[in-house]
Amino acid sequence: MNPKIEKLIKLFAKLPRVGARGGQRIALALLQDKTGRGTALANAIVDAVENIAPCPCCGVLTDRGIGTCEFCRDASRQNGQLCVVRDLSDVWTLEKSSVFHGRYHIIGGLLSGASGVLPQDLNISTLPSRINDEKITEVIFALPNTVEGKTTQHYVMSVIGDTANVNFTELASGVPLGGDLDYIDDGTLSLAFGGRKSL
Amino acid sequence: MNPKIEKLIKLFAKLPRVGARGGQRIALALLQDKTGRGTALANAIVDAVENIAPCPCCGVLTDRGIGTCEFCRDASRQNGQLCVVRDLSDVWTLEKSSVFHGRYHIIGGLLSGASGVLPQDLNISTLPSRINDEKITEVIFALPNTVEGKTTQHYVMSVIGDTANVNFTELASGVPLGGDLDYIDDGTLSLAFGGRKSL
Repeated sequence: MNPKIEKLIKLFAKLPRVGARGGQRIALALLQDKTGRGTALANAIVDAVENIAPCPCCGVLTDRGIGTCEFCRDASRQNGQLCVVRDLSDVWTLEKSSVFHGRYHIIGGLLSGASGVLPQDLNISTLPSRINDEKITEVIFALPNTVEGKTTQHYVMSVIGDTANVNFTELASGVPLGGDLDYIDDGTLSLAFGGRKSL
Repeated sequence: MNPKIEKLIKLFAKLPRVGARGGQRIALALLQDKTGRGTALANAIVDAVENIAPCPCCGVLTDRGIGTCEFCRDASRQNGQLCVVRDLSDVWTLEKSSVFHGRYHIIGGLLSGASGVLPQDLNISTLPSRINDEKITEVIFALPNTVEGKTTQHYVMSVIGDTANVNFTELASGVPLGGDLDYIDDGTLSLAFGGRKSL
């Protein structure tokens, strides 16, 4: 195979959820395209990679030149609520559902012995001062409902500690909407039973 | 969402088999990467898009500067066999299986009333002269085993016509290796029965 095409396929194949066959399809589509999609994509990648950086306040990726991100600039979002999430895709998911209209804080990972993620790898050192400066009254943890998510949540709570008069909350656990009990795992079922509501 | 990121996601999402969620994952991975994968990918795209073009002889994508492709340059492949395929990914599939060691001819599509693909859209006008020049004795059709593939095959045969003393062959139809009769469609089963071999 031509080395230029082979290199392109390899780079595409390493992207999330693409793989070897997907990389071939994508490379072929770009090379056979006559509308300049390949060049447009290359330009968009360079433009984004060079000009996008994490917001120094909350960690949301934003234009490097402007300083803080659209959430931190939006004064209407300063409602005392701060939602702690793992990464930007969680922010996008929450924004799409329109359930939350406060500020975000991206910690950038979960503590994990297996993957070697340590406290200093997480974006949490500025959290106590943020809570004071932005008069946060409620910290909502929207981390994955896994052992690692819960471990990280407890660690973040200990870092914030008693620095402020702040309530900690976490998302409810239970049976998902449309969830059939047949297909629910025991852990979820146990949490749903433990958290059952009176009617 | 940041417009630069949004644009990047949209361009990725339009690539084959990626889609909206895949585009998000890929854009995030590139933006959060610290090893320069984004820049490397952008450079590889530009390098390939600008320097790769179809081989003027057979249609295989190759370096624009060199002229003909690696298959057409390879004298050991001039064995009188010419394999007619739809596109480059079919060439890669055949190469991977090592079942064929002759020349290829990519026609670049299949005749289709529904998609509006007409004979002049196919790379077949040079086929008769190729067959003469390269002393082809067997034209092997490895087109998809569909109505459109068979229609195209018959059209290509009529174009080559009596220009040369050439044998036409096509890949065998039948039950795939490991194929369970329970999961085989009626059309394949009927072809497999019609083409049964004596033992």
